[in-house]
Amino acid sequence: MSFVTSHMSISLDGFVAGPGQSEESPLGIDGMKLHRWHLNDPKHQVDQAFTDRLLGPRGAYIMGRNMFGPVRGKWGNSDWRGWWGSEPPYHAPVFVLTHYPHDPITMEGGTIFYFVDGFDAALAKAAEAAGDRAIDVAGGASAVRQALQAGCLDELVLDLVPVVLGSGERIFDDLSELTAEPVEVATSPLATHIVYRIT
Amino acid sequence: MSFVTSHMSISLDGFVAGPGQSEESPLGIDGMKLHRWHLNDPKHQVDQAFTDRLLGPRGAYIMGRNMFGPVRGKWGNSDWRGWWGSEPPYHAPVFVLTHYPHDPITMEGGTIFYFVDGFDAALAKAAEAAGDRAIDVAGGASAVRQALQAGCLDELVLDLVPVVLGSGERIFDDLSELTAEPVEVATSPLATHIVYRIT
Repeated sequence: MSFVTSHMSISLDGFVAGPGQSEESPLGIDGMKLHRWHLNDPKHQVDQAFTDRLLGPRGAYIMGRNMFGPVRGKWGNSDWRGWWGSEPPYHAPVFVLTHYPHDPITMEGGTIFYFVDGFDAALAKAAEAAGDRAIDVAGGASAVRQALQAGCLDELVLDLVPVVLGSGERIFDDLSELTAEPVEVATSPLATHIVYRIT
Repeated sequence: MSFVTSHMSISLDGFVAGPGQSEESPLGIDGMKLHRWHLNDPKHQVDQAFTDRLLGPRGAYIMGRNMFGPVRGKWGNSDWRGWWGSEPPYHAPVFVLTHYPHDPITMEGGTIFYFVDGFDAALAKAAEAAGDRAIDVAGGASAVRQALQAGCLDELVLDLVPVVLGSGERIFDDLSELTAEPVEVATSPLATHIVYRIT
């Protein structure tokens, strides 16, 4: 089975996205504050190292539908192809969680979006696609929470950003138990990066 | 004005105490899980350094009433003198927040518990007592939240413990804004210690 990772930026009050996510505001109100550390240019050297880690090659990805796009319910005639332009940064199969069927979408650079109903089904397909390479649960909050609840994560990297959002989406709710060990830590002024091994 | 610090152990899901605090369970259900890093013996060297920092001398302390003890409402004939035996680890004046008057309690080793109505009044008295030495807001959640809301904290040290509690007391709720910068970080397997400068 592939090594399964997730890498999430999170506020001091535990939110990985702000409230009110929409096409205009995909990360919710103030959600962009969580991502300055890897969007700023030039970057602090610590943030650069964790940006490289975030973008590092994976064999497959799992992604929640809300992270893929703002369309809710049935897809209808939507031609939405993700937030990332013609060449998304994944360069691998991305399994998007949705209850509504959708044909695969082939993008430039090796990214193919597949649409799968249910986390376990997506994990099985991702494992098949990834072989011995790692699978990343890219987000958002609900997908990572499902991964934690399923107990399938081997590694969780948190970028703890020193802001409060007040409301939004949390990843650690409704977890009966989690046993993790921090194995690596580094900080910049914009984020404290902690690598957890989930045991 | 004194440098004002606080040092709190916090779970991944943001709780500094579990639910159901009582005389039998002062930290709430599973709350003790947050404090293994400084209660274990022997300690990891990183945890020892932050234990020393936690216990480091201060000119005065501010403490919420629920941290002082399990008595609620009027003090009545309670002879409660804190959780810490005859010689508490504070060795300085401790200003306990309470709406109910109570005579000061002098303990061994220099700790005197004073009882004050309102955070601002407690801060003024602590500043007077501390002179140019630091004031520590010792906890619990409500007292630290009041300090954050009042904007009086200069430094916040978090010991981020890799467990989830599911419910309990949070410190970052109901904060309109917080601007902090991590200036120091170190980890042991039991806790990731982050020193924030509040700006």
